[in-house]
Amino acid sequence: MNGLVGRLRSIVGADHVLAGEAAEEFTHDATFMAHTLLVVVRPADTGQVAHVVRACADSGTAVVARGAGTSLVGGPVPLAGGVVLSLDRLTWLEVDVPNTVAAAGAGVITRQLDDAAKAHGLMYPPDPASVEMSTIGGNVACNAGGLRCVKYGVTADYVVGLTVVLADGQVLRLGGRLRKRSSGYRLMHLFIGSEGTLGIVTEVIVKLVPLPRHRATAMVGFGTLEDAATAVSRMLAAGHLPAAVELLDRGALRLVREKMPPGFEPDLDAVLVVEQDGNEEEFVQLELMRMVELLDGVDNRIAQSSLERDRLWDARRTFGKVLMGMPHNFFAEDVAVPIGCVPEMARRIHRLAGDTGLQIVTVGHVGDGNLHPTVVFSEEQRHLVSPAAAAIFRDAIDLGGTISAEHGLGALKRDYAEFEHGPLAMGLMRQVKRLFDPSGILNPQKVFPEEPADDDFLNRMPGWIPDPEQRRRRSEAGV
Amino acid sequence: MNGLVGRLRSIVGADHVLAGEAAEEFTHDATFMAHTLLVVVRPADTGQVAHVVRACADSGTAVVARGAGTSLVGGPVPLAGGVVLSLDRLTWLEVDVPNTVAAAGAGVITRQLDDAAKAHGLMYPPDPASVEMSTIGGNVACNAGGLRCVKYGVTADYVVGLTVVLADGQVLRLGGRLRKRSSGYRLMHLFIGSEGTLGIVTEVIVKLVPLPRHRATAMVGFGTLEDAATAVSRMLAAGHLPAAVELLDRGALRLVREKMPPGFEPDLDAVLVVEQDGNEEEFVQLELMRMVELLDGVDNRIAQSSLERDRLWDARRTFGKVLMGMPHNFFAEDVAVPIGCVPEMARRIHRLAGDTGLQIVTVGHVGDGNLHPTVVFSEEQRHLVSPAAAAIFRDAIDLGGTISAEHGLGALKRDYAEFEHGPLAMGLMRQVKRLFDPSGILNPQKVFPEEPADDDFLNRMPGWIPDPEQRRRRSEAGV
Repeated sequence: MNGLVGRLRSIVGADHVLAGEAAEEFTHDATFMAHTLLVVVRPADTGQVAHVVRACADSGTAVVARGAGTSLVGGPVPLAGGVVLSLDRLTWLEVDVPNTVAAAGAGVITRQLDDAAKAHGLMYPPDPASVEMSTIGGNVACNAGGLRCVKYGVTADYVVGLTVVLADGQVLRLGGRLRKRSSGYRLMHLFIGSEGTLGIVTEVIVKLVPLPRHRATAMVGFGTLEDAATAVSRMLAAGHLPAAVELLDRGALRLVREKMPPGFEPDLDAVLVVEQDGNEEEFVQLELMRMVELLDGVDNRIAQSSLERDRLWDARRTFGKVLMGMPHNFFAEDVAVPIGCVPEMARRIHRLAGDTGLQIVTVGHVGDGNLHPTVVFSEEQRHLVSPAAAAIFRDAIDLGGTISAEHGLGALKRDYAEFEHGPLAMGLMRQVKRLFDPSGILNPQKVFPEEPADDDFLNRMPGWIPDPEQRRRRSEAGV
Repeated sequence: MNGLVGRLRSIVGADHVLAGEAAEEFTHDATFMAHTLLVVVRPADTGQVAHVVRACADSGTAVVARGAGTSLVGGPVPLAGGVVLSLDRLTWLEVDVPNTVAAAGAGVITRQLDDAAKAHGLMYPPDPASVEMSTIGGNVACNAGGLRCVKYGVTADYVVGLTVVLADGQVLRLGGRLRKRSSGYRLMHLFIGSEGTLGIVTEVIVKLVPLPRHRATAMVGFGTLEDAATAVSRMLAAGHLPAAVELLDRGALRLVREKMPPGFEPDLDAVLVVEQDGNEEEFVQLELMRMVELLDGVDNRIAQSSLERDRLWDARRTFGKVLMGMPHNFFAEDVAVPIGCVPEMARRIHRLAGDTGLQIVTVGHVGDGNLHPTVVFSEEQRHLVSPAAAAIFRDAIDLGGTISAEHGLGALKRDYAEFEHGPLAMGLMRQVKRLFDPSGILNPQKVFPEEPADDDFLNRMPGWIPDPEQRRRRSEAGV
């Protein structure tokens, strides 16, 4: 092992091999799961990544790729020990205007990529809630979604080129600055969403789209969650695809009530924040008004200025911060169901909260059927969380949905993967894993079930429940 | 072999096992390549497909899945003999409005799927030129594109569920009626675009989007092809994403001149047909006018009625029919380059035509960088075609592009695949093929290079040049 560390130092320079306290901030993700590791290495480019992986392969050492560590599923936590390979130094960024793409090192923060595109009148649409912190490489690793996905699609819909370091250190270049290709197998899509278990993505090329010049935003309140969900379907079938349609349920509304518009009907089961974008201010506003009419809520506000727009968004945006600052602990889920099944999924979550006495608050990207039910709990309720999460997983799968819409499986959800995909698909996935990583050194103990799913699955994960204090400090530090 | 035919008859019924003359129409695609085969089977559903594949696997017989046979690359031609498995009886179709998806048997004609969606105010965007004839299963097999892809994306961007019969006859169900998923490997994307070489797609679920209520169309003429390409980039960077932007070059304009609007400037190197869609008639027209202003051509027409819209499209739409009806033969290519490289690609094609004396006419989905340079030739020029096609391939690859944007590789382009993807990616694709089809019974001799690429590659394909008479008859029969 000392031999390996020496070799890593000679590849990336001694300053970029971290151990002990200096390594600490590179090892946790947003779950704060426990870990054991050898060292953190911070290579400067794809060539160095390839040498690091080769060195790890030679010594049979696990290597865990890491972006900004904002994973909510333990994706980059080195559960099997080994080397954490941080891509935070791969931050070159090029907006290629003539080809309408951006090329970037895996360590570029997604917001920076979008801002750079914006400077040229272009946009990179996928905007996970972590967009200010998470990296484009991390977004590719878990096929991140976000608020604009209902209209614009997810990360996978924008990736046109990848540089991947394979498990034996070979460098594979896929795709390019091209928007369209039907030539050979879509290998690129095997790496997207594979959470660093099939190869390490070091460079990404994404399509850009024209930046809409105007936005218009409204908030619409509903007496029942079912009314809200039905209203969204009605709006879509009437020809209106919103740029965002975000749901807050009664529990979420309670948490953010200080940010709600003054005088907005307080007794609501659901609120939608709806946005439309486009190039003609007048038309965008008109289109939004039509959408609000179709949604037909019990109360609504249409923002008349960009200040009012920001205020309406505040209620939705503040939700994560309020959670982070709470003395209680929480476990944030990320299920999706076919959009027509959102009311039934919401009913089942509501029933589960009633049955267990747990507080479950839900926000979500309702136009995609993607809900984030979040279990808020005290230490005394801790034993209830794992069975509750399992119940939510089972309900989502039962309704034809998924246990992970945009976060990946990581460690926390892997035990339920087989339940979602079935043994045949899971068997093929295992064979693909063996094909690309025969020694199993790439991010071990992730994605694939270790044990059959049961209601204690979370408790098998060492230290899966984040310490609220730790989380608050990290959140305040903006990490 | 007689044993196999008997077994196939007992699976699908004797009426649905065709041989001799009755099999003929199920064996050619739009290339009219030569073939040898045993029988055509027409199973009724996924279960029968599974039994057919199992029977072929048991006897080591090749099995070639087939949609409507509109491939331009020999995709479904049974070059290695064996069984042609026609999916034309899998025509069930369901538009699931609450979940905003459509589910269909692989044999459903894509236009029928879109029309069914339209009846509910929804749309299935990918619209290959063959949309009236080709099937959704075939579209998935070659990841078909089309005219609306610049704004809406290609087939792969809409597929959310697949039923696939594997090489051993097992039935794999992937995805569902869900719009968003980040859970496990994207196996679905291995089958999309794999041209029936990894599994046989029998059922497809696709996302639908709201149908825009209005369209507006214009034609804009340019003195040079470079001006046209630059104009498209300028329009995109100014925030305007058109619903379609189709290019016709000077050669293509000559072929369709009878369909050009009366009085339109006749001396042009390029014409763009531009369309915008949306919900407010007035705004869609305004947006289109802005786009026409930005394009800044030497002549333009903005359609003032749906009749005029159709007339403007006629010029573009008629191109394929004019080709089909010509006494000359032709070879239609399908390259794409990064969109900023379109002018250079066009220059190279022009130079090639000059150097060889071949007539090369080009239309294309220019917003995607996707060009269809088509070599029109007499029997005396036949020997020039293969080297010319090879030169076009090399130029596209040299500019960071692809030899197939939306048609697939099939047999005709397979020899150049390695040149595009390189040995590492190609090696991984071969391993994936072996993993999914260890005996190599699924659509043999497709996708992968048989021999190193050279300038005689087309002539290695038996009868690759369609007989104009045969093609005309088929075209008139609407097959």
